[in-house]
Amino acid sequence: MKAILKTHMAAGLTMQDVPKPTEVGPTEVLVKVRRASICGSDVHIYKWDDWARSHIKPPMIIGHEFAGTVEAVGEAVTMVKVGDYVAAETHIPCQQCYQCKTNRMHICRNMKILGVDIDGAFAEYVKVPQTILWKVSEKISPDFASVMEPFGNAVHTALVEDLTGKTVLITGVGPIGAMAVQVAKAAGASLVIASEIKPYRKNLAMINGADIVLDPTQEDLYARIMNVTNGDGVDVLLEMSGNPVALEQGLRSLTRGGTASILGVFGAKVKLSIDELITFKGIKICGITGRKIFETWRTADQLLSSGKVDLSKVVTHIISFDEWQKGFDLMLKGECGKVVMKVSD
Amino acid sequence: MKAILKTHMAAGLTMQDVPKPTEVGPTEVLVKVRRASICGSDVHIYKWDDWARSHIKPPMIIGHEFAGTVEAVGEAVTMVKVGDYVAAETHIPCQQCYQCKTNRMHICRNMKILGVDIDGAFAEYVKVPQTILWKVSEKISPDFASVMEPFGNAVHTALVEDLTGKTVLITGVGPIGAMAVQVAKAAGASLVIASEIKPYRKNLAMINGADIVLDPTQEDLYARIMNVTNGDGVDVLLEMSGNPVALEQGLRSLTRGGTASILGVFGAKVKLSIDELITFKGIKICGITGRKIFETWRTADQLLSSGKVDLSKVVTHIISFDEWQKGFDLMLKGECGKVVMKVSD
Amino acid sequence: MKAILKTHMAAGLTMQDVPKPTEVGPTEVLVKVRRASICGSDVHIYKWDDWARSHIKPPMIIGHEFAGTVEAVGEAVTMVKVGDYVAAETHIPCQQCYQCKTNRMHICRNMKILGVDIDGAFAEYVKVPQTILWKVSEKISPDFASVMEPFGNAVHTALVEDLTGKTVLITGVGPIGAMAVQVAKAAGASLVIASEIKPYRKNLAMINGADIVLDPTQEDLYARIMNVTNGDGVDVLLEMSGNPVALEQGLRSLTRGGTASILGVFGAKVKLSIDELITFKGIKICGITGRKIFETWRTADQLLSSGKVDLSKVVTHIISFDEWQKGFDLMLKGECGKVVMKVSD
Amino acid sequence: MKAILKTHMAAGLTMQDVPKPTEVGPTEVLVKVRRASICGSDVHIYKWDDWARSHIKPPMIIGHEFAGTVEAVGEAVTMVKVGDYVAAETHIPCQQCYQCKTNRMHICRNMKILGVDIDGAFAEYVKVPQTILWKVSEKISPDFASVMEPFGNAVHTALVEDLTGKTVLITGVGPIGAMAVQVAKAAGASLVIASEIKPYRKNLAMINGADIVLDPTQEDLYARIMNVTNGDGVDVLLEMSGNPVALEQGLRSLTRGGTASILGVFGAKVKLSIDELITFKGIKICGITGRKIFETWRTADQLLSSGKVDLSKVVTHIISFDEWQKGFDLMLKGECGKVVMKVSD
Repeated sequence: MKAILKTHMAAGLTMQDVPKPTEVGPTEVLVKVRRASICGSDVHIYKWDDWARSHIKPPMIIGHEFAGTVEAVGEAVTMVKVGDYVAAETHIPCQQCYQCKTNRMHICRNMKILGVDIDGAFAEYVKVPQTILWKVSEKISPDFASVMEPFGNAVHTALVEDLTGKTVLITGVGPIGAMAVQVAKAAGASLVIASEIKPYRKNLAMINGADIVLDPTQEDLYARIMNVTNGDGVDVLLEMSGNPVALEQGLRSLTRGGTASILGVFGAKVKLSIDELITFKGIKICGITGRKIFETWRTADQLLSSGKVDLSKVVTHIISFDEWQKGFDLMLKGECGKVVMKVSD
Repeated sequence: MKAILKTHMAAGLTMQDVPKPTEVGPTEVLVKVRRASICGSDVHIYKWDDWARSHIKPPMIIGHEFAGTVEAVGEAVTMVKVGDYVAAETHIPCQQCYQCKTNRMHICRNMKILGVDIDGAFAEYVKVPQTILWKVSEKISPDFASVMEPFGNAVHTALVEDLTGKTVLITGVGPIGAMAVQVAKAAGASLVIASEIKPYRKNLAMINGADIVLDPTQEDLYARIMNVTNGDGVDVLLEMSGNPVALEQGLRSLTRGGTASILGVFGAKVKLSIDELITFKGIKICGITGRKIFETWRTADQLLSSGKVDLSKVVTHIISFDEWQKGFDLMLKGECGKVVMKVSD
Repeated sequence: MKAILKTHMAAGLTMQDVPKPTEVGPTEVLVKVRRASICGSDVHIYKWDDWARSHIKPPMIIGHEFAGTVEAVGEAVTMVKVGDYVAAETHIPCQQCYQCKTNRMHICRNMKILGVDIDGAFAEYVKVPQTILWKVSEKISPDFASVMEPFGNAVHTALVEDLTGKTVLITGVGPIGAMAVQVAKAAGASLVIASEIKPYRKNLAMINGADIVLDPTQEDLYARIMNVTNGDGVDVLLEMSGNPVALEQGLRSLTRGGTASILGVFGAKVKLSIDELITFKGIKICGITGRKIFETWRTADQLLSSGKVDLSKVVTHIISFDEWQKGFDLMLKGECGKVVMKVSD
Repeated sequence: MKAILKTHMAAGLTMQDVPKPTEVGPTEVLVKVRRASICGSDVHIYKWDDWARSHIKPPMIIGHEFAGTVEAVGEAVTMVKVGDYVAAETHIPCQQCYQCKTNRMHICRNMKILGVDIDGAFAEYVKVPQTILWKVSEKISPDFASVMEPFGNAVHTALVEDLTGKTVLITGVGPIGAMAVQVAKAAGASLVIASEIKPYRKNLAMINGADIVLDPTQEDLYARIMNVTNGDGVDVLLEMSGNPVALEQGLRSLTRGGTASILGVFGAKVKLSIDELITFKGIKICGITGRKIFETWRTADQLLSSGKVDLSKVVTHIISFDEWQKGFDLMLKGECGKVVMKVSD
């Protein structure tokens, strides 16, 4: 079968023929991949940066965002059957630690990552444990089912509390931020403000329905927010930029008693006035990773199958599997939303 | 000033001239009424039924749904000032009981009711304690500010939990049910099903955006719900009919672990299989009365001023104050949504 | 191996030799039983009442409360290993329905019951799916590990909300009610009132630390509760009697905005003033079944291993496996707390 | 009347005779002070440090922790009456801002502070708005009622979530930390670990019931916590030291998905790995200030009046009003828990 691999400890990736997995263990499932989409972490692997070097052992099939059809199941598989339309968690929980045992598998202490620790989904077939599979509603196109994993990040981050009638600031509007704009609007936010500096992404925020898109390098974010919130500040901050200045501005713009949901990765320690920005204001900060397995997936599925969220505004490029290099080029330039590859029909 | 009074212990109401309130106590506020709307309880008073007989001591100015402008304030009033645009809680809490002291004033144990225990708002001026006033956003038309009190019932009932991506059944679609349809949709519900038997109200449900309107006398509610929810049942039941059959059907149609929010008044004991419908299914039931003071008002204000909810679909009649009898006639026939009276500009 | 079976469709049970299970499926586990305890539902099966007749197909090994040691594991078992000290859920969830997929396995729609739908734990060995096993802290004696399942009912019911500084009424103090008294006290309740009419159980309530034990046939429950709560009523009701009068009294005695957690099974429809007791008071009712898998088990384990709860006050009889008939006789008379059988060391 | 004043812009305080307040406004209350206790912020005022210099305008009667008896009430006062036994919030909310209107008065945007912005409670009489008064249960001694305000900080911080069966780390055990130890134990924590470096305070932690008291300068806090929590880490961190190292260690020792409640004031920006300590672990951080008005007071009152918490282990010194200088000397040396002054019987 065709697959995209990191073959050597160097930049770049290779599409090549590899043997199709034949044996499935008792609780494993073989999925025929229909669509696969490119994540920022795939780009890290492509570039072979520090993170990639410390996590990937070539040769390895990469990729973890996908949707497909169950092709074969192990003898003890009960959760899916051949023919089911599925997407999958990237996070493979151990099911044994305290977190897993108490229904918080997304923060498992012994997590394995699809396409990082085991062969991934940029291939015609992928073999996964049954526990990570989500049966996708037939109403959802495979183009969008493929991005349910990053969409789940947006859902998980945004729905940290009930947004109905709330004002929301989203700092950093990449594809996940853009999806979060839609989620916040769908969830009843009365005002969604997006803060972003890159022109492509400012436009993405606009297209996805942000009420206000502002550029913090062009205007005073705090002043503008106070102005449009009657001096209250926003109720909820969704930090998706990983930029310390954005975090500081966002927390400053948050109303007393507000909530900040942090998905952005800063890559280094952050210096912060905890007293002024968190403690004295009675702020709640929620660190977000992954997706609740499968509460977040259920909500994501309902939002998509009901049409409350329209991912055609975020999936900006649909290419063939063979055009994969073009997809990575787009990602490297940052001039795209989500890039989806058609692996099979 | 002109006012609508219950003058005698008999059916009917009278519009007559009464003295405008002159003195305001230290913490009282005099409000010039701009709009006032007719509640079902006003109709009970009109009809002089058992409930009215046991609660009203004529002569009494009735009415409690209104919006207006602050005309005068007592010496110790700090919460509003002359000229403020306000609506008001009907429920006047004691501020001393356990519930009031712990921010649950809507379930005060010593509640007084505007237009029932003290003179109400069907008058050119109404005198109220400052504690029940809500400063309305200027973006909200007085026609709609007048119905923020019943709209608050809808908001309070519907937002018993985060509805994003949830399926919702509303049993009973009078004006508050119709507003709840809009609130549920605005709050992110993926499917809103309305159950109603009266043609006028079925239409109201439709106009206000219900995804499905069904008549439980014409089709099997449980079967239909199972059919459209993939066999899961609905996540949330909003019971607004006060009909025991609707409650039983609603609970039966609720998914395991679901939530029922009850605003409907049954008027008599209800016979219910608690084992089958509540306990074994792990259901949560929330009794709803009034509005959270003022969390619900804030949410209501945000939903209206942002345009997430459009009350023009519920306020079906706007009449002059002098036409009040026509308003009550409409209410008695049940062929209306909310009826708003223009008391002043 | 020795086992207690329902051999015929008639009252009574039989201890007899049956083949020890030999083969375990890929995800199954064979447990050597150390202790097993008798549940009220085992007594129903003994008596062969309506419920038993409609649920049990003889021959069947009964029993579901137990603790033991893992003896053998299937090839795909990852959650436990040979030698582990375990107790188990009675409820075997399907892991496929909406509830299971969203971490609410205790309300699975396709639940199977150990000792009812498949051979149970009143035997020297029991074969179970790995998914229902809980690794018990070594600090917990097997005598008490055996009753973690009903103790979990007490924990699940009582901890429906944070009880710190709250007043709690428990109606019905059988063994689970007695455990709930201890849980409520351990969880910070400032006052725990037990309502019970049977002398043995009144004493059990007292021994387990109830601040007040009252007999509603001897005194006015409502009046007494108002008297000891400064007129507020209790914050939380734990209904464990399945008696409609107790439910009505309990809800009446609940403070406005309070919470009722219902574990008791009424066996028939209940007639209730929903208006007066739930809606107008803003009450929340939570139906409770089973135990959260495994959040409740974790809490139960922590409460026992830390000594915050002492089950020696509830486990009133520890007998040998061969004395099983004596255990059932005690249960039939109702003159006991929990009865634990020593199946092996 | 006798009062303790900051008379000049310099270190020290003065006890002198000042006129007893005579007039009370319509919503004001005059309280005869029975006990008053010394807060760390009073010591800042004594020392006349930067914070004091920027907040206090002499002459000013200082002090805000007190309990007393209502002596006189304004004409529009409804919440208390002459003779009531009361304690009071330090925080005087505006009752007009978004936070106040939505029952979050403890994070009011226009807060005034008793003994800082208006004359305080280190006097024989103090005049306060009725809105900040809490009627204390008669079962609570005035010695302890006087410290309900800082005790409320402990309650507010500790009860950020239900602690039943949870493991808790408290970093920094001054008087509020010591009270938090008791609250956590009373609230059902299965293990309470206190981290402290000062010998006096380590002893205070022990006396107040910490299961483990450790000195992070003497042993590896993280290693010890992993050891005693079975490798899980603690469920909840209560940060009360204001020390960045303690915060970092505490967050590192927190289990994935755990909660950190921060009351400690750092006094400067803190450098923190948000990625590693918060985001990837799915941690929730809650900034804590003041006390919920009056939910926290209710819980505090119930814990004290029921005997679940015993403040005699924290109130280490009870002195006469005239001995006030001795009290401040103790506070300056740090060799005390709470110091309470008897102002009148």
